[in-house]
Amino acid sequence: MVKKISLLGATGSIGVQTLDVIRAHPTSFTLVAMSVGKNIDKALEYILEFKPLLVSVQEQHDAERLQREVPSEVKVLYGRKGLIEVASIDADVLVNAVLGSVGLEPTLAAIESGKQIALANKETLVTAGHIVMKKAKEKGVSILPVDSEHSAIFQCLNGESEKDISKLIITASGGSFRDRTRDQLNGVTVEEALNHPNWSMGAKITIDSATMMNKGLEVIEAHWLFDIPYDQIEVLLHKESIIHSMVEFTDTSVLAQLGLPDMRVPIQYALTYPTRLELPRAKRLNLLDIGTLNFGKADFERYRCLRFAYESGRQGGSMTTVLNAANEEAVSQFLNGKIEFLQIEVLIEEALQRHSFIKEPALEIIHEVDKETRQFVRSLIQI
Amino acid sequence: MVKKISLLGATGSIGVQTLDVIRAHPTSFTLVAMSVGKNIDKALEYILEFKPLLVSVQEQHDAERLQREVPSEVKVLYGRKGLIEVASIDADVLVNAVLGSVGLEPTLAAIESGKQIALANKETLVTAGHIVMKKAKEKGVSILPVDSEHSAIFQCLNGESEKDISKLIITASGGSFRDRTRDQLNGVTVEEALNHPNWSMGAKITIDSATMMNKGLEVIEAHWLFDIPYDQIEVLLHKESIIHSMVEFTDTSVLAQLGLPDMRVPIQYALTYPTRLELPRAKRLNLLDIGTLNFGKADFERYRCLRFAYESGRQGGSMTTVLNAANEEAVSQFLNGKIEFLQIEVLIEEALQRHSFIKEPALEIIHEVDKETRQFVRSLIQI
Repeated sequence: MVKKISLLGATGSIGVQTLDVIRAHPTSFTLVAMSVGKNIDKALEYILEFKPLLVSVQEQHDAERLQREVPSEVKVLYGRKGLIEVASIDADVLVNAVLGSVGLEPTLAAIESGKQIALANKETLVTAGHIVMKKAKEKGVSILPVDSEHSAIFQCLNGESEKDISKLIITASGGSFRDRTRDQLNGVTVEEALNHPNWSMGAKITIDSATMMNKGLEVIEAHWLFDIPYDQIEVLLHKESIIHSMVEFTDTSVLAQLGLPDMRVPIQYALTYPTRLELPRAKRLNLLDIGTLNFGKADFERYRCLRFAYESGRQGGSMTTVLNAANEEAVSQFLNGKIEFLQIEVLIEEALQRHSFIKEPALEIIHEVDKETRQFVRSLIQI
Repeated sequence: MVKKISLLGATGSIGVQTLDVIRAHPTSFTLVAMSVGKNIDKALEYILEFKPLLVSVQEQHDAERLQREVPSEVKVLYGRKGLIEVASIDADVLVNAVLGSVGLEPTLAAIESGKQIALANKETLVTAGHIVMKKAKEKGVSILPVDSEHSAIFQCLNGESEKDISKLIITASGGSFRDRTRDQLNGVTVEEALNHPNWSMGAKITIDSATMMNKGLEVIEAHWLFDIPYDQIEVLLHKESIIHSMVEFTDTSVLAQLGLPDMRVPIQYALTYPTRLELPRAKRLNLLDIGTLNFGKADFERYRCLRFAYESGRQGGSMTTVLNAANEEAVSQFLNGKIEFLQIEVLIEEALQRHSFIKEPALEIIHEVDKETRQFVRSLIQI
């Protein structure tokens, strides 16, 4: 049976690799719909190659231009409504790989339409985990992780019972500054921060790796995805990024998933689960080449963002929305050269401290908190 | 539901630890039958503690003595017939932890009676894998591994499809002489050979670790247990013995099972599979304490017994019986101070070279080849 795939964020890093997986398995997968942002040339190329039924772009004028250039059987939409349509189309799996909080609404629409979701959009669970997981449970919809760490845990849990889990162990490369002390973080440049030792990713997530906020957001995601208390989620420094994460069970047995860094592996697993397929042109792990795997402590003083994430996660409610929004704004200002690297965590801390906790925020409240937090962070910088 | 356990080899290392697992979970397991060798005092102690219905000992006079000392509802048998009765009794799982080729017949009897088998007896699969696995398949009986390496693979395969396996990776500590070159093996003493760095085990298996024959036998067992060709089974030196083995899948993803060395984990997993239970007084793995995991090549020139095992396994038929019998005899002579450590492999090689291959040997042929090989090895020593 050919699985029908709908893809949000086709021209981003995860989107492009998702298309690579679909391209490699024409008898297993077919692309029925996709969304792109503003890269219309790429969109046109993908439409001609994959022949989806439905495409959505960000802007109306791009949609109109694109509609004229593609075969008439391809429907082109735009904006928020377009995203929702792509998420709601008749498909087996929605791959949600858009960046930012815009990914939340389509996720809910896809759950409503009852399809499996391969989730690469962090904000969905970080800011609205309580809403998304509740709705997924009601509708009997599976949320499959695309992140390499969560996919690792998900693979380790295959065939296991939830009641037997004693701990999730999420590994962290330590990011671009892992070999520096806190003092050595003063005055680092954007360029240095963007130089990740193991993975080639977008700018935002690479900075999040350097601050360890990325790992913090993953802890929060893991909490929601696997329904595990924060006390049972650990972060472990592992600079080789070969073990992608682990699960410890009640009998002390630990399962781990390993591999060379290749995002196509978790993407494909989310599409093939519970079975697997060959992955063409993928390099196999050879531990003889690697020789040694190292482990170290993910220190809360060295990586203060990780502490913020645990604290926000434990408080729950609107705190994780503040965490995420303050981080996005601060990282964006760092990338624009407006603030120092170490100011990122200062801004996040201030935003968290001033926020008045709201217990189970509805979607509108989440949006409001998100907007207001960003404004607050900007206001701190302008002073 | 309380699982009824029948245990062959109750006073050996695996047997004692199996009883420890049963003791820890009185609402999950009950011992209904057991066999012991000559340790009658221990047998009496276990009978009073676990109250099995049936006990078998090696010698008739021990059986008679024991029958007088135990409550009358406990039936005491002896010898080969006793072992078969223990294996055939109404139970959910037979744990086969006897040493040597005496373990084969009861395994076949247990399969005949349709019960699950937790297998710790190597000879069963090494010498008669073709008979045992065929019969298990016919009867729909599961053979669950008790060895830490095979249990690791079995745990990694839980929830996976056989067709998705690309490779089994069995880890090897390297044994007591792992830091020595071949030249440095000249004149090593029995005492040095028995000093295993990671595991505390019986004498025979500790020597087998030093020669790497133990790993070779595990490769042959893995071939039969998981129905995987020898080309897809690798051995990897890993001196910390933390990763107990791994499976690589077609999508390049690798799953590994980790833990501190504690045989009760694989024993208990074979009894609880597919779920798990807490393991009291077990130490949890902390990779921060370990710090580093190292990997190295299991070289066929350094470890010639490993090469012999692959070669015998690939030839199949009666060759693995010769391998096993020659090894048992040679190791026994080494332990008795009759030969040098490096002569073990010389004797095995000579026995393999002189043997005339028999394709699918029946049980009687296996017994004959076994006996004849031991005689041949002894004859070489007497010269």
